[in-house]
Amino acid sequence: MTTWTARVLTLFPGMFPGPLGQSLAGRALDEGRWRLEVTDIRSFATDRHRTVDDTPFGGGPGMVMRPDVLAAAIDGVQAGAGAVAASQPLVYFSPRGKRLDQALVGEFVAAGGVTLVCGRFEGVDERLLEARSVREVSLGDFVLSGGEIAALALLDAVVRLLPGVVGTAASLADESFADGLLEYPQYTRPQAWEGRDVPAVLVSGDHGKVAAWRRAEAERITKERRPDLWAAHRERELKGDR
Amino acid sequence: MTTWTARVLTLFPGMFPGPLGQSLAGRALDEGRWRLEVTDIRSFATDRHRTVDDTPFGGGPGMVMRPDVLAAAIDGVQAGAGAVAASQPLVYFSPRGKRLDQALVGEFVAAGGVTLVCGRFEGVDERLLEARSVREVSLGDFVLSGGEIAALALLDAVVRLLPGVVGTAASLADESFADGLLEYPQYTRPQAWEGRDVPAVLVSGDHGKVAAWRRAEAERITKERRPDLWAAHRERELKGDR
Repeated sequence: MTTWTARVLTLFPGMFPGPLGQSLAGRALDEGRWRLEVTDIRSFATDRHRTVDDTPFGGGPGMVMRPDVLAAAIDGVQAGAGAVAASQPLVYFSPRGKRLDQALVGEFVAAGGVTLVCGRFEGVDERLLEARSVREVSLGDFVLSGGEIAALALLDAVVRLLPGVVGTAASLADESFADGLLEYPQYTRPQAWEGRDVPAVLVSGDHGKVAAWRRAEAERITKERRPDLWAAHRERELKGDR
Repeated sequence: MTTWTARVLTLFPGMFPGPLGQSLAGRALDEGRWRLEVTDIRSFATDRHRTVDDTPFGGGPGMVMRPDVLAAAIDGVQAGAGAVAASQPLVYFSPRGKRLDQALVGEFVAAGGVTLVCGRFEGVDERLLEARSVREVSLGDFVLSGGEIAALALLDAVVRLLPGVVGTAASLADESFADGLLEYPQYTRPQAWEGRDVPAVLVSGDHGKVAAWRRAEAERITKERRPDLWAAHRERELKGDR
């Protein structure tokens, strides 16, 4: 099997691997469990000033990334990566995109790799998104100064799901969203701290009771904090899809 | 006025400033438009192995961050930062938290600073969150290997809103979420590219028509892609709250 590969197009190649060079993702990178190929968009500019952006037609503040330069960068990277890369998701980060969630992360894992286009300034020329069938993905309803940190988040979420990266599969099975619920509360030593004790059931040694308590807590927290997730979870339960 | 200050508690201080040391946020940091204070949680461990985590009560995979060590780190950082810091948001990143959005970013800007606690492993002891009135904030419905990249995203979103960081206030007024709509499509040179022309209205020179077209496009895109945002926008319009 080929190694899961991220191709990142950015004006700030120095931002990568950044935090992904350390801890879990960094170790996995060192061990060859994933690959990171970073390309400087500016190297595909054609004029002597290496221009990548220009003013928006119709006026307005800021600068827009040129479609020709970005297309050359995408085409160049895809060509270098071969036929497989062309079939893998081509993502541009934008608040207008589909919101990143754990299901989408799973899709990217399964695809074997992604090409991530990081924008800067006021965004990219709309024709580029249409002409190259770019998928717009959003980190959330807030505005970043560029796509780079969104790319780091997506890659971190992907890499921890790759085989051998997180020690135990059980760790992944138990976490938030694994079955559509938020995670139950966790407790560790000291057992008594600032007058607060660990819930008695967790030190009872009764595994069945612990499991039932955790399930009930996960349901309570999901119901309280995320009625939307709770409704979707109930619907799946009714359909027997669990 | 005091400088907007981020206090970050992490087990990976080397991840900061990371991408925030470059581009817009990096220049703003160099210019003293915001401050970043990074604290290694491990320096508050008390045993000779500098332990910060332990196994969860009730069993299960992974490790949980100890409440006593984290509380010492938070208390130490807040004490060092003075009375103002204690009144500023204390945030822990978790998928169970309130989702980060542009309104919450604005709240953090207005607060003058934040203290961000970055978790690792299976999470932190629940008693810590209760005892220190920690606000749980989520980057989205996906799981990261730690809070560090979420912290980078939050800080990037905050910093670009600080005075003097983005060149023109108009850039901020026009972007996604500024008035509850997603942004209209942008176009720049070349005017004709791969057989695709820039929409004629944008080169008409008629500013009124350009503005009307952009407004209509922003509404169309919001309606198509985000019925939830569109409904909220319509409701505000009906209330005359615009």
